[in-house]
Amino acid sequence: MRWFLPKSNDFLSMFRHASDNIVDGAALFHEITLDPSNLKEKVERLKEMEHVGDRITHEAMDLLNQHFITPFDREDIHALISRLDDVIDVTDAAAQRLVLFRITAIPPHLRRLAEILLSSTREMQRALVALHNRKTHAEALKACVEINRLENDADVVHREALGELFANSTDAITIIKLKELYSLLESATDRCEDVANVVQSIIIKAS
Amino acid sequence: MRWFLPKSNDFLSMFRHASDNIVDGAALFHEITLDPSNLKEKVERLKEMEHVGDRITHEAMDLLNQHFITPFDREDIHALISRLDDVIDVTDAAAQRLVLFRITAIPPHLRRLAEILLSSTREMQRALVALHNRKTHAEALKACVEINRLENDADVVHREALGELFANSTDAITIIKLKELYSLLESATDRCEDVANVVQSIIIKAS
Amino acid sequence: MRWFLPKSNDFLSMFRHASDNIVDGAALFHEITLDPSNLKEKVERLKEMEHVGDRITHEAMDLLNQHFITPFDREDIHALISRLDDVIDVTDAAAQRLVLFRITAIPPHLRRLAEILLSSTREMQRALVALHNRKTHAEALKACVEINRLENDADVVHREALGELFANSTDAITIIKLKELYSLLESATDRCEDVANVVQSIIIKAS
Repeated sequence: MRWFLPKSNDFLSMFRHASDNIVDGAALFHEITLDPSNLKEKVERLKEMEHVGDRITHEAMDLLNQHFITPFDREDIHALISRLDDVIDVTDAAAQRLVLFRITAIPPHLRRLAEILLSSTREMQRALVALHNRKTHAEALKACVEINRLENDADVVHREALGELFANSTDAITIIKLKELYSLLESATDRCEDVANVVQSIIIKAS
Repeated sequence: MRWFLPKSNDFLSMFRHASDNIVDGAALFHEITLDPSNLKEKVERLKEMEHVGDRITHEAMDLLNQHFITPFDREDIHALISRLDDVIDVTDAAAQRLVLFRITAIPPHLRRLAEILLSSTREMQRALVALHNRKTHAEALKACVEINRLENDADVVHREALGELFANSTDAITIIKLKELYSLLESATDRCEDVANVVQSIIIKAS
Repeated sequence: MRWFLPKSNDFLSMFRHASDNIVDGAALFHEITLDPSNLKEKVERLKEMEHVGDRITHEAMDLLNQHFITPFDREDIHALISRLDDVIDVTDAAAQRLVLFRITAIPPHLRRLAEILLSSTREMQRALVALHNRKTHAEALKACVEINRLENDADVVHREALGELFANSTDAITIIKLKELYSLLESATDRCEDVANVVQSIIIKAS
């Protein structure tokens, strides 16, 4: 008992493809925070993933334009495609800044935020798989709740990071750099929450 | 002559509950800018209000999931719940930074922005009360216009604050801290405007 | 063979009016980056354009409230009006900061970002003209794709600008100022992309 129309699989597999790519990006970013050696090469690989995200986005938009009947609201598909793309974009932006700012030592709070982002993208992946079938919608909603919880965690770590930064650093340029990095990581988890909101909205309408 | 279906009261009273909480948060923030003594204790109280906001948000989402018939578009209810939560979140974020940045003297422009935020949240409260009844929709729209006007005011004060900051301060770390605080306060009034936009959209569809 | 109902011309001409004003604003900003003399007078003229944008926004909202039948979804019209206003708002915010930050020498990367913004607003104008008639919807979509491409260009230039800034500047206050200016310009092209997204969504629904 599947709840979508023919061709819906194309969209759902694209969403999964996009979320797999996002998890890969977050995993690579997390890896960088554990071992920042060969930074440039790793950051270039992440940029490649961002380009993969762009290609998926364009293909999905084309698919949307070619089909009159869609498995759920066109607007929700449109929103989901865009919001998914935002996650990999922000992850890539954070990685680029590691290079631009010539960051060599990774502060522990940045590593912690990268861990939370990775967990959040995995929940997102779980939610998008569970979206396939009405029977697993409850599971998708649970993953969305978890994404919200992780976003709160990221918020707490973000604040701790800022507190520590302003208490211990006297170099304004270092503060500017780390403040931006922390903020980008925290905003990547916000973008995961945006994806979760669209998923919730799709399930609400389907229920 | 009420325009909503049974159970709609539950949503409308939740929106009011949320907006009462937001007004309390903005009033406490404003109080802090008038008297920053016992800062930690006051900021912890504001954090409590942010948690109250989270609970209201979750209850509202549950209510939305449990009901097939809703007083207005599910998506608008979903958007309104999320946007209301954003207002208290940003107010709390600004309060936290007063502690993290060890701000002891409140600059006059910050006080002025807190005043505008308080006014804006009161108009938001007024709009949500007036949403209850078609007869008072014109009043709700007037409150929305006022929220837009206040957002413009906040923008003007924000720019004055930045001009003064960059003209008179030579300490980069002070500039970073105050720039972030001004920006958060201004963005809190932007989030009020987002709420007003959803309210306008609900009324437009109902008219 | 026009696809809209009576009165739709009013909306479509308002969108065009708004986009003409946005192009004028972006052209003036670009002019400032080529010749920053008489800065205050030019920035005041840009502020005037921002006010014109506000007036168009209010008139369009009133028109929306007065008409039951609209050429396309009320919500899309509402979103388009708001997103268009955002573009001129951010352009104006960037111009104001040139004055507030007492910028006298324009860095080449800022000029380049202003060029990209101008191109993007012209594509936006082209998309809104092409929205008038179903026969030219393909052209509107092409302009939207171009806006997306230009947003990617702005992103690349933004990163180069940051890399150069952090590599060559040792003055934290200069870094704060230019970082904010680059970020505002880049976000202006993001706001153009938001407009393009609404246009795409309107065309998707109409197809």
